[in-house]
Amino acid sequence: METFFNPSSVAIVGATEKPGSLPGVILKNLIDMGFQGKVYPVNPKYKTVFGLQCFSSILDIPDEVALNVIAIPAPLVLNVVQQQARKRIRHAIIISAGFREMGAEGIAMEEQIRHVACENDIRILGPNCLGVLDNYSNFTTSFLSWERVSCPKKGSLSILSQSGAFAVALLDLASQEGLGIAKMVNYGNRLDVGESTLLSHLRDDIHTRVIAIYMESVDHGRKFIAEARSCSRKKPIVALKVGKGAAGIAAAKSHTGAIAGNYAIYKAAFLKSGILEANGLEEFIDGVKALSMQNPPKGNRILIVTNGGGFGVIVADHCSEYGLEVPLPSQQLKEKLRTKLSSFYVVSNPVDLTGSACDRDYHTALTVAMLESDEYDAAIIIPLMAPQGMTEKVVELITDTMKQSEKPAVICTVGGAFTMKIKQLFEDREFPVYPSPERSAKAMSMLLRRRMLQEAAGHSPL
Amino acid sequence: METFFNPSSVAIVGATEKPGSLPGVILKNLIDMGFQGKVYPVNPKYKTVFGLQCFSSILDIPDEVALNVIAIPAPLVLNVVQQQARKRIRHAIIISAGFREMGAEGIAMEEQIRHVACENDIRILGPNCLGVLDNYSNFTTSFLSWERVSCPKKGSLSILSQSGAFAVALLDLASQEGLGIAKMVNYGNRLDVGESTLLSHLRDDIHTRVIAIYMESVDHGRKFIAEARSCSRKKPIVALKVGKGAAGIAAAKSHTGAIAGNYAIYKAAFLKSGILEANGLEEFIDGVKALSMQNPPKGNRILIVTNGGGFGVIVADHCSEYGLEVPLPSQQLKEKLRTKLSSFYVVSNPVDLTGSACDRDYHTALTVAMLESDEYDAAIIIPLMAPQGMTEKVVELITDTMKQSEKPAVICTVGGAFTMKIKQLFEDREFPVYPSPERSAKAMSMLLRRRMLQEAAGHSPL
Repeated sequence: METFFNPSSVAIVGATEKPGSLPGVILKNLIDMGFQGKVYPVNPKYKTVFGLQCFSSILDIPDEVALNVIAIPAPLVLNVVQQQARKRIRHAIIISAGFREMGAEGIAMEEQIRHVACENDIRILGPNCLGVLDNYSNFTTSFLSWERVSCPKKGSLSILSQSGAFAVALLDLASQEGLGIAKMVNYGNRLDVGESTLLSHLRDDIHTRVIAIYMESVDHGRKFIAEARSCSRKKPIVALKVGKGAAGIAAAKSHTGAIAGNYAIYKAAFLKSGILEANGLEEFIDGVKALSMQNPPKGNRILIVTNGGGFGVIVADHCSEYGLEVPLPSQQLKEKLRTKLSSFYVVSNPVDLTGSACDRDYHTALTVAMLESDEYDAAIIIPLMAPQGMTEKVVELITDTMKQSEKPAVICTVGGAFTMKIKQLFEDREFPVYPSPERSAKAMSMLLRRRMLQEAAGHSPL
Repeated sequence: METFFNPSSVAIVGATEKPGSLPGVILKNLIDMGFQGKVYPVNPKYKTVFGLQCFSSILDIPDEVALNVIAIPAPLVLNVVQQQARKRIRHAIIISAGFREMGAEGIAMEEQIRHVACENDIRILGPNCLGVLDNYSNFTTSFLSWERVSCPKKGSLSILSQSGAFAVALLDLASQEGLGIAKMVNYGNRLDVGESTLLSHLRDDIHTRVIAIYMESVDHGRKFIAEARSCSRKKPIVALKVGKGAAGIAAAKSHTGAIAGNYAIYKAAFLKSGILEANGLEEFIDGVKALSMQNPPKGNRILIVTNGGGFGVIVADHCSEYGLEVPLPSQQLKEKLRTKLSSFYVVSNPVDLTGSACDRDYHTALTVAMLESDEYDAAIIIPLMAPQGMTEKVVELITDTMKQSEKPAVICTVGGAFTMKIKQLFEDREFPVYPSPERSAKAMSMLLRRRMLQEAAGHSPL
């Protein structure tokens, strides 16, 4: 599998400098990204493309080629795969659309390609996909314009997605949420390589800490469960399964030709293999962000600290909704908090620092309740930035105290431009920020679900 | 009630130019907002404040005063209310905190104030509140810094909130979401005026089209149901009830001293009075936005149009989850779409315009399926902006076609900076945009719930 992510040499069939052509954009993106392997443009029309020597056919390339990238019209693909077999290129990424998703004729073309691939021991990613983005080898087959979609920074999240549009949206969201990416794979029609093989590869990938999978259907049920189970013991896997109800199943079928199948079976499989299922795009990205930035808590006891009483109340409600406990502090802890905080503040759970709060109060409350006491396993912190006493400094005070406590925290903060700046500062320090009470409570519950899975598997925490 | 929103004259007790003082900030905000009524600063220390003549006591003001704004320490408030009784000022907004929420002593102070108010026919808003913001009379008692919190533009949404922090966050969110505000009222401890009285006022307010209420508890159960019922026949009311579970109820009690009570009773009351209940802050603001911008659909049949197949699938799933139907097009409609769209596109529901989509395809699909056909009541449209064929023009094409069809639509679009610009353009044209499939489906279901309530009440659509 490594060849798909970091090929020693790659051929790009159809390469051109013409704007808008897929193979051209792929080559351009690859060059811009600073990929260090050998790149061979293939196109009988040109001698050079973007300054690189261009070959009439892959058969004319004098050296060995590890990976063949095919982004030409569907009816022409089979011929190129046959050439690649003769040249003994063992890996292909077929970007081209116009196969299974178009009906009987497309299915037939896929079958012919599969036949050639099997006979010649060629592994194929695609067709009908974006292929690969690897932020460590600087390799990509993406034909996206990076002016429209932001390319996320290097990081520890890897994304597997059957849907191209979803993969793109996730890249865009990840960079918006300050989430770094290790690898992204979009495998589209999944003629050969699918999530099972990829999971087994990502399990041992040193750059990947968390895996996010978007799936409409699965390639091989049993193999998938086995691979996912083995992988989830090492790293969290969060899945977004779509095509659940009748309307969604019909839509999935016309999308990637996928048979979405009975959702109850998927649910059971996720449970069995230690996969955390998300319901909806936001729960998906929020959970992945929490798992990428924070460790699972040791237990279920959540402290809420805020300077906006109403937000404390609604977070407490959502904690109950998602199975998190919000226990009151002991008499002893209450008294300790009382002596250190202004008499106006509400010393309970939530701790309400009121509209009079200043930065330092967060430090005080968290030091007493999280660092010096063992009554809570994790914190949901809601610093509202409207009051004058609240400044950017609160970020450092909160994150330093929580890091010392070695307990996880998620941040909820609601508002406009000034609040967005604070979000960025928290996320630079790897504390995930959510724009609503319900999402912060849900993200914390995702951390806890990961902890419970680890315990069920009899494994030590990450 | 009108006096609270547009007083002919107002006294501000404790007015000063000292930075950070509440009465000072209130006076400053009022002047900055361009309020046209008479303003009387009251403070024995000064002759003038911000260029206005300042009086030693409200008793020294030579003219009649309609409203008294009190933002001085709690123990001093009773005396000012007694003075106001002598001066025959019939309305007071008490901003000051330090009452019921602080325990027995605070409750006693509130009781004394209530006694004076009752005997002298004074209506009171507060204490422990931000008071009022009226974007049409340009009147406010807010002590917020408008550098930290954005003040939303003029519009048709009115907000009632027991919690000050929530009111602030909603103002901030509203301006972020392009939602215009008519009135905001935060009544805090609700010594006298509460949601029942305010609802009855907003029912007949010409500037208010939609009402959003944040509540921890209710003032008078029966009165509230009667007023809400009468009001909801004219305009949609969306409520966010917090303090639902044990943890939330405890938190609400220490927040505004509110007894949150049995949640099941609230649920029944909302149903009885035609209030749309939201679960969580995002459902609340999303629903309010949909109702402010679009009319309820005539029925349940939703068309999904997208250029990202995966997004079509997940929106279809969430439609099923929230009770919306996604019926397949008739054979006739399918053929009509087929002849007008590229043969690559998936002509079904969702209509999938694929990565090859350009702006014009949205116009074509919506004209055929929404304008010229009667098979669908509303549309969820998901224009993903990554492909090169998609430009800003798509906004005009989509909104013009939907307006002609006289059917409602909500937009879902996911991504980074470029997508945010598109969102703004849609919302300037009063088409609500949501950043995830689940939120767009939920918002559409809120529109449909409004329709069902109207039908249940035997009323014609708005």
